[in-house]
Amino acid sequence: MKTLNDAFHHTLKDIYYAEQALTKALPKVAKATSSAKLKKAVDEHLSETREQIELLKKVFSSIDKKPEGEKCDAIEGLIKETEGIIEEASGVALDAALLAAAQAVEHYEIARYGTLREWAKVLGFEEAHDLLTQILDMEKAANAKLTSMAVETINKTK
Amino acid sequence: MKTLNDAFHHTLKDIYYAEQALTKALPKVAKATSSAKLKKAVDEHLSETREQIELLKKVFSSIDKKPEGEKCDAIEGLIKETEGIIEEASGVALDAALLAAAQAVEHYEIARYGTLREWAKVLGFEEAHDLLTQILDMEKAANAKLTSMAVETINKTK
Repeated sequence: MKTLNDAFHHTLKDIYYAEQALTKALPKVAKATSSAKLKKAVDEHLSETREQIELLKKVFSSIDKKPEGEKCDAIEGLIKETEGIIEEASGVALDAALLAAAQAVEHYEIARYGTLREWAKVLGFEEAHDLLTQILDMEKAANAKLTSMAVETINKTK
Repeated sequence: MKTLNDAFHHTLKDIYYAEQALTKALPKVAKATSSAKLKKAVDEHLSETREQIELLKKVFSSIDKKPEGEKCDAIEGLIKETEGIIEEASGVALDAALLAAAQAVEHYEIARYGTLREWAKVLGFEEAHDLLTQILDMEKAANAKLTSMAVETINKTK
Protein backbone atom coordinates (compact mmCIF):
# COMPACT_ATOMS: atom_id res chain seq x y z
CA MET A 1 0.00 0.00 0.00
CA LYS A 2 1.59 3.23 -1.10
CA THR A 3 -1.12 5.53 -2.43
CA LEU A 4 -4.51 6.60 -1.12
CA ASN A 5 -5.98 4.52 -3.92
CA ASP A 6 -4.17 1.44 -2.51
CA ALA A 7 -5.43 2.23 0.99
CA PHE A 8 -8.99 2.61 -0.36
CA HIS A 9 -8.90 -0.72 -2.19
CA HIS A 10 -7.33 -2.51 0.81
CA THR A 11 -9.90 -1.13 3.28
CA LEU A 12 -12.74 -1.97 0.91
CA LYS A 13 -11.58 -5.62 0.84
CA ASP A 14 -11.28 -5.48 4.61
CA ILE A 15 -14.89 -4.34 5.20
CA TYR A 16 -16.18 -6.75 2.53
CA TYR A 17 -14.58 -9.57 4.54
CA ALA A 18 -16.03 -8.09 7.76
CA GLU A 19 -19.60 -7.97 6.43
CA GLN A 20 -19.34 -11.56 5.23
CA ALA A 21 -17.98 -12.66 8.60
CA LEU A 22 -20.99 -10.96 10.23
CA THR A 23 -23.44 -12.97 8.13
CA LYS A 24 -21.95 -16.05 9.82
CA ALA A 25 -21.79 -14.54 13.33
CA LEU A 26 -25.23 -12.90 13.54
CA PRO A 27 -27.25 -16.16 13.43
CA LYS A 28 -25.28 -17.33 16.52
CA VAL A 29 -26.34 -14.16 18.36
CA ALA A 30 -29.98 -14.63 17.31
CA LYS A 31 -29.84 -18.21 18.61
CA ALA A 32 -28.22 -17.23 21.92
CA THR A 33 -30.66 -14.57 23.09
CA SER A 34 -33.91 -15.34 24.86
CA SER A 35 -35.26 -11.88 24.02
CA ALA A 36 -37.69 -12.03 21.10
CA LYS A 37 -37.07 -8.34 20.45
CA LEU A 38 -33.28 -8.70 20.24
CA LYS A 39 -33.68 -11.80 18.06
CA LYS A 40 -35.90 -9.85 15.67
CA ALA A 41 -33.42 -6.95 15.54
CA VAL A 42 -30.52 -9.32 14.82
CA ASP A 43 -32.49 -11.09 12.07
CA GLU A 44 -33.30 -7.75 10.48
CA HIS A 45 -29.66 -6.69 10.70
CA LEU A 46 -28.66 -9.93 9.00
CA SER A 47 -30.74 -9.10 5.94
CA GLU A 48 -29.41 -5.54 5.99
CA THR A 49 -25.86 -6.93 6.08
CA ARG A 50 -26.64 -9.02 2.98
CA GLU A 51 -27.95 -5.87 1.26
CA GLN A 52 -24.73 -4.07 2.21
CA ILE A 53 -22.66 -6.86 0.67
CA GLU A 54 -24.54 -6.32 -2.60
CA LEU A 55 -23.89 -2.56 -2.35
CA LEU A 56 -20.19 -3.24 -1.71
CA LYS A 57 -20.08 -5.38 -4.87
CA LYS A 58 -21.31 -2.30 -6.75
CA VAL A 59 -18.55 -0.22 -5.13
CA PHE A 60 -15.92 -2.71 -6.38
CA SER A 61 -17.47 -2.68 -9.82
CA SER A 62 -17.53 1.15 -9.89
CA ILE A 63 -13.73 1.18 -9.54
CA ASP A 64 -13.29 -1.71 -12.01
CA LYS A 65 -12.22 -4.23 -9.40
CA LYS A 66 -13.67 -7.62 -8.65
CA PRO A 67 -15.24 -8.05 -5.20
CA GLU A 68 -12.87 -9.85 -2.86
CA GLY A 69 -12.28 -9.97 0.86
CA GLU A 70 -9.09 -9.75 2.87
CA LYS A 71 -8.87 -11.02 6.44
CA CYS A 72 -9.82 -8.23 8.83
CA ASP A 73 -8.28 -8.72 12.28
CA ALA A 74 -10.50 -6.11 13.89
CA ILE A 75 -13.79 -7.82 13.03
CA GLU A 76 -12.31 -11.20 14.00
CA GLY A 77 -11.58 -9.72 17.44
CA LEU A 78 -15.03 -8.18 17.77
CA ILE A 79 -16.71 -11.47 16.79
CA LYS A 80 -14.47 -13.43 19.19
CA GLU A 81 -15.56 -11.07 21.96
CA THR A 82 -19.22 -11.74 21.10
CA GLU A 83 -18.65 -15.51 21.11
CA GLY A 84 -17.03 -15.15 24.55
CA ILE A 85 -20.18 -13.43 25.84
CA ILE A 86 -22.39 -16.23 24.48
CA GLU A 87 -20.22 -18.75 26.34
CA GLU A 88 -19.87 -16.87 29.62
CA ALA A 89 -23.07 -14.89 30.15
CA SER A 90 -26.67 -15.71 30.93
CA GLY A 91 -29.88 -13.92 31.90
CA VAL A 92 -29.88 -10.14 31.98
CA ALA A 93 -26.09 -9.97 31.52
CA LEU A 94 -26.30 -11.97 28.29
CA ASP A 95 -28.76 -9.67 26.51
CA ALA A 96 -27.15 -6.46 27.83
CA ALA A 97 -23.66 -7.61 26.82
CA LEU A 98 -24.81 -8.88 23.41
CA LEU A 99 -26.43 -5.53 22.70
CA ALA A 100 -23.25 -3.74 23.79
CA ALA A 101 -21.14 -5.99 21.55
CA ALA A 102 -23.45 -5.32 18.60
CA GLN A 103 -23.04 -1.58 19.22
CA ALA A 104 -19.24 -1.98 19.26
CA VAL A 105 -19.48 -3.69 15.85
CA GLU A 106 -21.70 -0.89 14.52
CA HIS A 107 -19.24 1.74 15.75
CA TYR A 108 -16.42 -0.11 14.02
CA GLU A 109 -18.37 -0.13 10.78
CA ILE A 110 -19.32 3.54 11.13
CA ALA A 111 -15.61 4.40 11.52
CA ARG A 112 -14.69 2.31 8.46
CA TYR A 113 -17.44 3.56 6.13
CA GLY A 114 -16.82 7.14 7.28
CA THR A 115 -13.17 6.79 6.26
CA LEU A 116 -13.93 5.01 2.98
CA ARG A 117 -16.51 7.58 1.99
CA GLU A 118 -14.09 10.49 2.60
CA TRP A 119 -11.34 8.72 0.68
CA ALA A 120 -13.73 8.04 -2.22
CA LYS A 121 -14.55 11.74 -2.37
CA VAL A 122 -10.89 12.78 -2.47
CA LEU A 123 -10.15 10.12 -5.10
CA GLY A 124 -13.00 11.34 -7.30
CA PHE A 125 -14.92 8.04 -7.05
CA GLU A 126 -18.37 9.61 -7.17
CA GLU A 127 -20.45 6.46 -7.51
CA ALA A 128 -18.46 4.75 -4.73
CA HIS A 129 -18.91 7.82 -2.55
CA ASP A 130 -22.70 7.70 -2.97
CA LEU A 131 -22.93 3.95 -2.35
CA LEU A 132 -20.71 4.18 0.75
CA THR A 133 -22.79 7.07 2.09
CA GLN A 134 -25.88 4.90 1.66
CA ILE A 135 -24.28 2.08 3.68
CA LEU A 136 -22.96 4.52 6.32
CA ASP A 137 -26.49 5.88 6.83
CA MET A 138 -27.81 2.32 7.25
CA GLU A 139 -25.16 1.60 9.91
CA LYS A 140 -25.92 4.81 11.78
CA ALA A 141 -29.64 3.98 11.79
CA ALA A 142 -28.86 0.45 13.03
CA ASN A 143 -26.72 1.84 15.85
CA ALA A 144 -29.45 4.28 16.90
CA LYS A 145 -31.95 1.39 17.00
CA LEU A 146 -29.57 -0.68 19.15
CA THR A 147 -29.03 2.25 21.51
CA SER A 148 -32.77 2.67 22.16
CA MET A 149 -33.15 -1.07 22.61
CA ALA A 150 -30.19 -1.14 25.02
CA VAL A 151 -31.60 1.65 27.15
CA GLU A 152 -35.02 -0.07 27.20
CA THR A 153 -33.55 -3.50 28.04
CA ILE A 154 -31.30 -2.39 30.86
CA ASN A 155 -33.99 -0.15 32.33
CA LYS A 156 -36.09 -3.27 32.81
CA THR A 157 -33.43 -4.62 35.17
CA LYS A 158 -34.05 -1.83 37.66
CA MET B 1 -21.97 -13.08 34.22
CA LYS B 2 -25.59 -13.17 35.21
CA THR B 3 -26.58 -9.70 36.40
CA LEU B 4 -26.08 -6.23 34.95
CA ASN B 5 -23.64 -5.65 37.80
CA ASP B 6 -21.58 -8.63 36.55
CA ALA B 7 -21.68 -7.29 32.99
CA PHE B 8 -20.55 -3.86 34.22
CA HIS B 9 -17.62 -5.28 36.19
CA HIS B 10 -16.59 -7.55 33.30
CA THR B 11 -16.71 -4.75 30.72
CA LEU B 12 -14.79 -2.43 33.04
CA LYS B 13 -11.97 -5.01 33.29
CA ASP B 14 -12.14 -5.36 29.52
CA ILE B 15 -11.63 -1.64 28.80
CA TYR B 16 -8.97 -1.38 31.53
CA TYR B 17 -7.05 -4.07 29.66
CA ALA B 18 -7.69 -2.26 26.36
CA GLU B 19 -6.33 1.08 27.60
CA GLN B 20 -3.21 -0.63 28.95
CA ALA B 21 -2.71 -2.45 25.64
CA LEU B 22 -2.95 0.92 23.88
CA THR B 23 -0.14 2.38 25.99
CA LYS B 24 2.06 -0.32 24.45
CA ALA B 25 0.71 0.04 20.89
CA LEU B 26 0.68 3.84 20.55
CA PRO B 27 4.49 4.30 20.72
CA LYS B 28 4.78 1.91 17.73
CA VAL B 29 2.40 4.13 15.75
CA ALA B 30 4.32 7.28 16.72
CA LYS B 31 7.54 5.60 15.56
CA ALA B 32 6.07 4.42 12.25
CA THR B 33 4.69 7.69 10.93
CA SER B 34 6.79 10.24 9.11
CA SER B 35 4.19 12.96 9.77
CA ALA B 36 5.29 15.23 12.65
CA LYS B 37 1.67 16.22 13.18
CA LEU B 38 0.40 12.65 13.49
CA LYS B 39 3.32 11.79 15.78
CA LYS B 40 2.43 14.70 18.04
CA ALA B 41 -1.24 13.68 18.13
CA VAL B 42 -0.32 10.09 19.00
CA ASP B 43 2.04 11.23 21.76
CA GLU B 44 -0.69 13.43 23.21
CA HIS B 45 -3.16 10.58 23.04
CA LEU B 46 -0.69 8.36 24.89
CA SER B 47 -0.63 10.72 27.87
CA GLU B 48 -4.42 11.00 27.71
CA THR B 49 -4.65 7.20 27.76
CA ARG B 50 -2.51 7.13 30.92
CA GLU B 51 -4.85 9.70 32.48
CA GLN B 52 -7.82 7.51 31.53
CA ILE B 53 -6.19 4.52 33.23
CA GLU B 54 -5.98 6.57 36.44
CA LEU B 55 -9.65 7.55 36.07
CA LEU B 56 -10.59 3.89 35.54
CA LYS B 57 -8.77 2.99 38.79
CA LYS B 58 -11.08 5.48 40.51
CA VAL B 59 -14.10 3.79 38.89
CA PHE B 60 -12.98 0.41 40.28
CA SER B 61 -12.44 1.97 43.68
CA SER B 62 -15.88 3.63 43.60
CA ILE B 63 -17.51 0.19 43.35
CA ASP B 64 -15.14 -1.35 45.94
CA LYS B 65 -13.22 -3.47 43.44
CA LYS B 66 -9.51 -3.61 42.79
CA PRO B 67 -8.39 -2.50 39.32
CA GLU B 68 -7.71 -5.49 37.12
CA GLY B 69 -7.75 -6.21 33.41
CA GLU B 70 -9.24 -9.08 31.47
CA LYS B 71 -8.09 -9.93 27.97
CA CYS B 72 -10.15 -8.00 25.44
CA ASP B 73 -10.27 -9.73 22.04
CA ALA B 74 -11.65 -6.67 20.28
CA ILE B 75 -8.75 -4.39 21.13
CA GLU B 76 -6.30 -7.17 20.33
CA GLY B 77 -7.84 -7.36 16.86
CA LEU B 78 -7.79 -3.59 16.38
CA ILE B 79 -4.13 -3.41 17.44
CA LYS B 80 -3.22 -6.36 15.18
CA GLU B 81 -4.84 -4.48 12.30
CA THR B 82 -2.72 -1.40 13.08
CA GLU B 83 0.46 -3.51 13.23
CA GLY B 84 -0.46 -4.96 9.83
CA ILE B 85 -0.67 -1.44 8.40
CA ILE B 86 2.77 -0.55 9.80
CA GLU B 87 4.20 -3.65 8.09
CA GLU B 88 2.42 -3.31 4.76
CA ALA B 89 1.98 0.41 4.07
CA SER B 90 4.25 3.30 3.24
CA GLY B 91 4.00 6.94 2.13
CA VAL B 92 0.56 8.52 1.89
CA ALA B 93 -1.19 5.19 2.44
CA LEU B 94 0.64 4.65 5.76
CA ASP B 95 -0.47 7.90 7.38
CA ALA B 96 -4.01 7.75 5.96
CA ALA B 97 -4.46 4.13 7.10
CA LEU B 98 -2.90 4.77 10.54
CA LEU B 99 -5.29 7.68 11.08
CA ALA B 100 -8.21 5.52 9.99
CA ALA B 101 -7.12 2.74 12.37
CA ALA B 102 -6.83 5.23 15.23
CA GLN B 103 -10.37 6.39 14.49
CA ALA B 104 -11.61 2.78 14.55
CA VAL B 105 -10.04 2.40 18.02
CA GLU B 106 -11.68 5.65 19.19
CA HIS B 107 -15.05 4.47 17.91
CA TYR B 108 -14.60 1.20 19.79
CA GLU B 109 -13.85 3.08 22.99
CA ILE B 110 -16.77 5.46 22.46
CA ALA B 111 -19.10 2.45 22.14
CA ARG B 112 -17.67 0.85 25.29
CA TYR B 113 -17.70 3.95 27.50
CA GLY B 114 -21.18 4.86 26.24
CA THR B 115 -22.43 1.44 27.36
CA LEU B 116 -20.56 1.50 30.68
CA ARG B 117 -21.85 4.95 31.51
CA GLU B 118 -25.47 3.95 30.86
CA TRP B 119 -25.09 0.78 32.91
CA ALA B 120 -23.53 2.79 35.78
CA LYS B 121 -26.55 5.08 35.76
CA VAL B 122 -29.03 2.21 35.91
CA LEU B 123 -27.01 0.52 38.66
CA GLY B 124 -26.97 3.71 40.73
CA PHE B 125 -23.16 4.06 40.58
CA GLU B 126 -23.13 7.84 40.54
CA GLU B 127 -19.39 8.41 40.95
CA ALA B 128 -18.62 5.79 38.30
CA HIS B 129 -21.18 7.41 35.99
CA ASP B 130 -19.47 10.80 36.32
CA LEU B 131 -15.96 9.41 35.82
CA LEU B 132 -17.02 7.38 32.78
CA THR B 133 -18.75 10.43 31.29
CA GLN B 134 -15.48 12.33 31.72
CA ILE B 135 -13.55 9.62 29.84
CA LEU B 136 -16.27 9.36 27.15
CA ASP B 137 -15.99 13.10 26.50
CA MET B 138 -12.20 12.79 26.19
CA GLU B 139 -12.59 10.00 23.63
CA LYS B 140 -15.15 11.96 21.62
CA ALA B 141 -12.82 14.98 21.54
CA ALA B 142 -9.92 12.75 20.46
CA ASN B 143 -12.02 11.29 17.64
CA ALA B 144 -13.06 14.76 16.44
CA LYS B 145 -9.39 15.79 16.37
CA LEU B 146 -8.45 12.69 14.37
CA THR B 147 -11.29 13.37 11.91
CA SER B 148 -10.07 16.91 11.16
CA MET B 149 -6.52 15.65 10.85
CA ALA B 150 -7.63 12.85 8.51
CA VAL B 151 -9.52 15.23 6.25
CA GLU B 152 -6.53 17.61 6.18
CA THR B 153 -4.02 14.80 5.52
CA ILE B 154 -5.89 13.13 2.71
CA ASN B 155 -6.77 16.44 1.10
CA LYS B 156 -3.05 17.03 0.68
CA THR B 157 -2.90 13.97 -1.57
CA LYS B 158 -5.12 15.63 -4.14
